[in-house]
Amino acid sequence: MYVILVYDMDGKRVGKMLKLCRRYLSWIQNSVFEGELTDIQLKQLKSEAEALMSGKDSLIIFKNRDQKWLDKEVVGEERASIDNFL
Amino acid sequence: MYVILVYDMDGKRVGKMLKLCRRYLSWIQNSVFEGELTDIQLKQLKSEAEALMSGKDSLIIFKNRDQKWLDKEVVGEERASIDNFL
Repeated sequence: MYVILVYDMDGKRVGKMLKLCRRYLSWIQNSVFEGELTDIQLKQLKSEAEALMSGKDSLIIFKNRDQKWLDKEVVGEERASIDNFL
Repeated sequence: MYVILVYDMDGKRVGKMLKLCRRYLSWIQNSVFEGELTDIQLKQLKSEAEALMSGKDSLIIFKNRDQKWLDKEVVGEERASIDNFL
């Protein structure tokens, strides 16, 4: 499935979350990632993220069966894009 | 249409972008918003955002005809939710 992930972490844990998310998804903007994951990969990512998270840390995952249902538009500078990998 | 908006702005312009986005959408996490917009509202929002943006500022808008095509899952603390308004 197609996944958009955004996190809001305490400064001390940001680096670890960034590394974790990069293993599963493509970075598109400050604390925003996207990519295709299987159910199992998403479960693993969530479980690893939960182990890192603490206090007021927050993680939001938007899931869509197919990327074609979602249009993406970038205004200003495009930092990175999954398009490079497709 | 259902819209997810994420921005990455230089510190000096963050406050203005936050205010602008709040006028159109619901804040759900640090620099992440969601909500229902008409084509005209989205056009207005983009035009006002572009007027604020400068340098390496970046704005990504995910659009979907219907929110039902997108599942949202929150891990950790839920900061705010459009559900309050529905």
